[in-house]
Amino acid sequence: MRETSLDLDVLAQSESVFALANGHLGLRGNLDEGEPYGVPGTYLNGFYELRPLPYAEGGYGYPESGQTMINVTNGKLLRLLVDDEPFDVRYGRLESHERVLDVRAGTLTRDVHWVSPAGQAVRIRTVRLVSFTQRAVAAISYEVEAIDDRARVVVQSELVANEPLPPASTDPRVAAVLASPLVGEDFGTRGDTAVRLAHHAAASGLRVAAAMDHVVEGPPLTAVTADASPDVGRVTATTLLEPGQRLRIVKFMGYGWSSLRSRQALVDQVVAAVSAAHQTGWDGLLAEQREYLDAFWERASVEVDGDPEIEQAVRFALFHVLQAGARAEGRALPAKGLTGSGYDGHAFWDTETFVLPALTYTFPTAAADALRWRHSTLPVARQRAETLGFQGAAFPWRTIAGEECSGYWPAGTAAFHVNADIADAVVRYVDATGDREFERAVGHDLLVETARLWWCIGHHDRKGAFRIPGVTGPDEYSALADDNVYTNLMAQLNLRAAADAAERHPAEASALGVSAEEIGAWRRAADAMYVPYDRELGVHPQSLGFTEHELWDFASTRPDQYPLFLHFPYFDIYRKQVVKQADLVLALHLRGDAFTPEQKARDFAYYEALTVRDSSLSACTQAVVAAEVGHVELAYDYLGEAALMDLHDLEHNVADGVHIASLAGAWIAIVAGLGGMRDHGGELSFAPRLPAALTRLAFRITFQRRLLEVAADREQVTYRLLEGEPLRIVHDGEPLLVTTGAPVTRPALPVPDLPRPAQPPGREPARRVPRT
Amino acid sequence: MRETSLDLDVLAQSESVFALANGHLGLRGNLDEGEPYGVPGTYLNGFYELRPLPYAEGGYGYPESGQTMINVTNGKLLRLLVDDEPFDVRYGRLESHERVLDVRAGTLTRDVHWVSPAGQAVRIRTVRLVSFTQRAVAAISYEVEAIDDRARVVVQSELVANEPLPPASTDPRVAAVLASPLVGEDFGTRGDTAVRLAHHAAASGLRVAAAMDHVVEGPPLTAVTADASPDVGRVTATTLLEPGQRLRIVKFMGYGWSSLRSRQALVDQVVAAVSAAHQTGWDGLLAEQREYLDAFWERASVEVDGDPEIEQAVRFALFHVLQAGARAEGRALPAKGLTGSGYDGHAFWDTETFVLPALTYTFPTAAADALRWRHSTLPVARQRAETLGFQGAAFPWRTIAGEECSGYWPAGTAAFHVNADIADAVVRYVDATGDREFERAVGHDLLVETARLWWCIGHHDRKGAFRIPGVTGPDEYSALADDNVYTNLMAQLNLRAAADAAERHPAEASALGVSAEEIGAWRRAADAMYVPYDRELGVHPQSLGFTEHELWDFASTRPDQYPLFLHFPYFDIYRKQVVKQADLVLALHLRGDAFTPEQKARDFAYYEALTVRDSSLSACTQAVVAAEVGHVELAYDYLGEAALMDLHDLEHNVADGVHIASLAGAWIAIVAGLGGMRDHGGELSFAPRLPAALTRLAFRITFQRRLLEVAADREQVTYRLLEGEPLRIVHDGEPLLVTTGAPVTRPALPVPDLPRPAQPPGREPARRVPRT
Repeated sequence: MRETSLDLDVLAQSESVFALANGHLGLRGNLDEGEPYGVPGTYLNGFYELRPLPYAEGGYGYPESGQTMINVTNGKLLRLLVDDEPFDVRYGRLESHERVLDVRAGTLTRDVHWVSPAGQAVRIRTVRLVSFTQRAVAAISYEVEAIDDRARVVVQSELVANEPLPPASTDPRVAAVLASPLVGEDFGTRGDTAVRLAHHAAASGLRVAAAMDHVVEGPPLTAVTADASPDVGRVTATTLLEPGQRLRIVKFMGYGWSSLRSRQALVDQVVAAVSAAHQTGWDGLLAEQREYLDAFWERASVEVDGDPEIEQAVRFALFHVLQAGARAEGRALPAKGLTGSGYDGHAFWDTETFVLPALTYTFPTAAADALRWRHSTLPVARQRAETLGFQGAAFPWRTIAGEECSGYWPAGTAAFHVNADIADAVVRYVDATGDREFERAVGHDLLVETARLWWCIGHHDRKGAFRIPGVTGPDEYSALADDNVYTNLMAQLNLRAAADAAERHPAEASALGVSAEEIGAWRRAADAMYVPYDRELGVHPQSLGFTEHELWDFASTRPDQYPLFLHFPYFDIYRKQVVKQADLVLALHLRGDAFTPEQKARDFAYYEALTVRDSSLSACTQAVVAAEVGHVELAYDYLGEAALMDLHDLEHNVADGVHIASLAGAWIAIVAGLGGMRDHGGELSFAPRLPAALTRLAFRITFQRRLLEVAADREQVTYRLLEGEPLRIVHDGEPLLVTTGAPVTRPALPVPDLPRPAQPPGREPARRVPRT
Repeated sequence: MRETSLDLDVLAQSESVFALANGHLGLRGNLDEGEPYGVPGTYLNGFYELRPLPYAEGGYGYPESGQTMINVTNGKLLRLLVDDEPFDVRYGRLESHERVLDVRAGTLTRDVHWVSPAGQAVRIRTVRLVSFTQRAVAAISYEVEAIDDRARVVVQSELVANEPLPPASTDPRVAAVLASPLVGEDFGTRGDTAVRLAHHAAASGLRVAAAMDHVVEGPPLTAVTADASPDVGRVTATTLLEPGQRLRIVKFMGYGWSSLRSRQALVDQVVAAVSAAHQTGWDGLLAEQREYLDAFWERASVEVDGDPEIEQAVRFALFHVLQAGARAEGRALPAKGLTGSGYDGHAFWDTETFVLPALTYTFPTAAADALRWRHSTLPVARQRAETLGFQGAAFPWRTIAGEECSGYWPAGTAAFHVNADIADAVVRYVDATGDREFERAVGHDLLVETARLWWCIGHHDRKGAFRIPGVTGPDEYSALADDNVYTNLMAQLNLRAAADAAERHPAEASALGVSAEEIGAWRRAADAMYVPYDRELGVHPQSLGFTEHELWDFASTRPDQYPLFLHFPYFDIYRKQVVKQADLVLALHLRGDAFTPEQKARDFAYYEALTVRDSSLSACTQAVVAAEVGHVELAYDYLGEAALMDLHDLEHNVADGVHIASLAGAWIAIVAGLGGMRDHGGELSFAPRLPAALTRLAFRITFQRRLLEVAADREQVTYRLLEGEPLRIVHDGEPLLVTTGAPVTRPALPVPDLPRPAQPPGREPARRVPRT
């Protein structure tokens, strides 16, 4: 991704797009010199402050305290003084500017040619990385060169805690901003080049430490000093540059946090991290980074011939998904990754439903790690279920450390589908990897405790059908409805998977007190699961009664009244037929095995006319089902929207961070959409169909220790096993066996010419036209 | 009501029960000397402060600021020093204590014999009133007598603003706002006996003034002085009492508030009120008070022979209803009247649904006043409808001045039935008084604007039925349900009444732009109103799908888990068959014309088994319908519960004020319950049936300028027209004409011997056994 000019109006957006992270440590793409900024941001996964959750009218079981991800000590800062003027792009003249995010190198590079107000010209080149191989480490190479005249140059490399932040927006999605949340515990210098700071968050008590060390290369007589105070650590390099001379500073940063470890232990830990990075050296870090990414791209390659913009966007998307999950190791994958503080840094169901499918097939160990995090929060989820009066575990709607942080229960706690989404991710991971040991140690407990929840919150009605009333499905424009089809079908999958897992792992089942009767009850509930159907319209209502509701008056809704929830009361939105994001259509994807092709076609057309996509979690799913029911060009349009969500800021909130789930959705739109990949019951199937603009589509996935490449062009589809034992797959209903060295080829599937279904006026996806 | 000993553990409860008010000014029954107290309280109807309404997650249309009734300048204070010790019942010895609330005199009397810690005995007799005839005025006669020894006595009569209160909210922001809400504007004395204070509320800006003057009678050499500071005004009387001598102080207080009038105008107004009271004199005020109440009781008499406790309780109830409504004159009737700050002093739907029926038939001008208040808030209600995206008017769920103050929309804004409840009260008032001028000037607009709302939030479904989805009915243990039977039937009444009124008042209709088409649309919607019915069970579901929900697990619910909403999440409560308060059963009462007797019997029995009465607004309605379907003893039990709600503190919150609607409900349980009175379509009908314990029941009602007495004993029912033109009524289905001087007698109706329906275990009403 290349930025060739600096537009301060979209600075915050560029900071999100250019953010670097490794799942543990995240640095927004703030300018090195700190100002101007959109939102300064340095984040550590799992590090949070507590803030009170206030209610005008309280209620039983409402969480009283929320976790919010906060901006920790900023180590990105490198302030530059040229002669007697600070380098600030708002002053003087910016002769040229370029930033490049290199998803193969894992670096953000910046090249600037700046003339100070006094006329002094300098060239600044910085390269920044957050290491995938050393998770506590980030590093910056900072180089300044005098161009025409001799320049006195001072570079201050800093660590700053409690940076002032821009004021909070009234938009509920934006994080609460906490003023000065960090309390100083320790600071100090070592020699002239190393500084450390340690703090704790005032309310949560979590401790954070940051350290830095430097290698300074400059002309003789370059002076280096270090100083520290509770909130500021500084290493200052001062020199005189002749034209063409350079001052280069390599900054190594180490970060750590803990809820348990002592101040001294934590400080030692980050100092050690810096030591290791220092020893690896800048070139060593760069080499490790590339090696790591080469391995990743080898298994996650996506090619989209005919639309280089989409190809680039999908690779960008996968890179951000990797950045969110690579080294999370027992922590959540927040909705914005570590690229911004939107949604308070919380993780939601979208991790399991959108992010993990992408990771499961491209980087399965990260998917396993994310589910291990869920498993680690089981005690909290069991406690939450008990508070709510239920058995099993009730996972939170939004959280950092496991506790429910939702302050609006109709769209939070009531969205119990998150529990089935976790189960679905477990099933997918186990099917896709064959990792029975994971199922035994992690998956089993997750499946059993969520199945218990379903069994408890559903009930058999007078006729024996299993009903789940009063829940909120994925579509946040409905709430507290009975028998949400998505929820019921996902709960069915959950109950059956739990029964299977408990039977496969009797020791683990017994440890949780699972009896044969309980397993039987789960199976009976699953078999009797109620799925409402509107016979008159011949479609599935999203929830019982949904299709009897009044249609939203789309004709009278002005373009500036989207997203609807900012302009209409929930009361009116909930009671009408209007859909924020795929819900029934998501069921058509994830539980496609429960619908006939005719039902899918009718349902898809019906919900197309109602879906306004006021959420980033919709276009990708619509792409998937559109492709399946034959609307390949529409699928391509939705792929375009999903892939460009953040790069084109389609939701107008990328300033708060990129949408990791939507980025994963771009991959889903390619692979499950145009590629037609499904994994129902562990069976891998494909049905690739190309829109007219594309000449070829190819992607790789990892499945049960194989590496498979699927490539489709206008003539044929080719399945190539690059690694592993022979693999059975299904191509458009036809079973195939693929072996290494023997690609299997089939003729390209026909693309039907169907009339395009209608969307709400003004909410049609943009027609995708590749840039030539 | 007589209290013969002082129990400090229920001091706050007694302060509510012994509160005096006239609808404009309310004084809690605090001890004259100010301490100890439960909750000090002096309230002016309509005077409020604003407080922020915080949300953990905000939403469109959420009110950001709430109105809250605050304790204004306290003029009840008369502090007494006996020799050198303050009179405080917590010290020394309380030899005797008696308080009497006399509902015929309209006074609260207190007689105390107290011995100070030093052994000095005094007798204190105070009489307090809040004048019904001079609405700005309250007065206290305070008499202290030395008993055995000569006593030096100092009485300080005070006005105190910003009294410290027990903490009201745990939210620090709210607590801060309400700590010292009054800002001093003016204070001063006039002569030795008169003091005034003026303040405004910091956030709302509303201005309040209070003044007092005194008549002091004591031995020669009694000295009187006055002083004032911003928050304290004081008149001090000092004397030496020989044994048997008395010091008597009559304190006249005047109160006023305004959002418009200047400080000086308001101060003049309260000083003038005190002047007028002073001229009327203590005896004059007492005489006016009795005359006013004689006139009231003449038209509101209730006799319950065989159960004197119930008889007293119902009279107590009517007195508090009168105190809430008598002189409200263009202000709301708060749920707690002016007896406490519970529910923030807000008015709810219970005013129209429970309080106004009682007032309409006993004191119709107060009912008209209350509806004029609603009419005065039409601009705000229209604005609220517009904010919500609707036409017409959307009246608030809870308010003081008309603005929506509900901070939890699923049980607030979504409870749109409040609009139909207002319409129902209009219809009832107009039918019961024949006051077409009121209909033209007030009722018409209320009916039309609420009908517009219904037309807008409902819709004709595919089959033409008119549906109202996503609303919350009276039962707060369900929310956001489709086609709540109560709501739909009340909306039907509302739509038809609006059509009738618009046709009767074409000029007014035209002024609101009502067309014949619009009227036609209302009628069509009303005629097509959908009323769900469960054919399998043969009962009406409270809302669509309700009877398919799981039954609440009453068997596993412990007695200490009631009220349920304090022990279970709304999520679980909403989705199960459990009823907080009469909802479908309230429809059986208020829209009894829409059900067959068989439906009523089946529906009542079904909902009896589900209704836990976690609200005070249920027992009275259950009494009414129980009696109608033949369960007369059960009706009597519910009457007992309704009548003793506050006196026995059955809801454990009378400390915050009495429940005006439940008190009105005691009257309803007598008149509509045992008396069987109905007023469907303006036709007055009765069907009195007595439980075994009662020998006679008699009550009077005002109807279309007549005064009618209904008396029933074991042998017969007698209708006696005491005033007015001949009146057609219906007795148990038989039309009767009653004329003055010619009572009509009919044999007593048989009481069927039916098996008692079941209530949830542990939630049965107490069997009513009259005290002998």
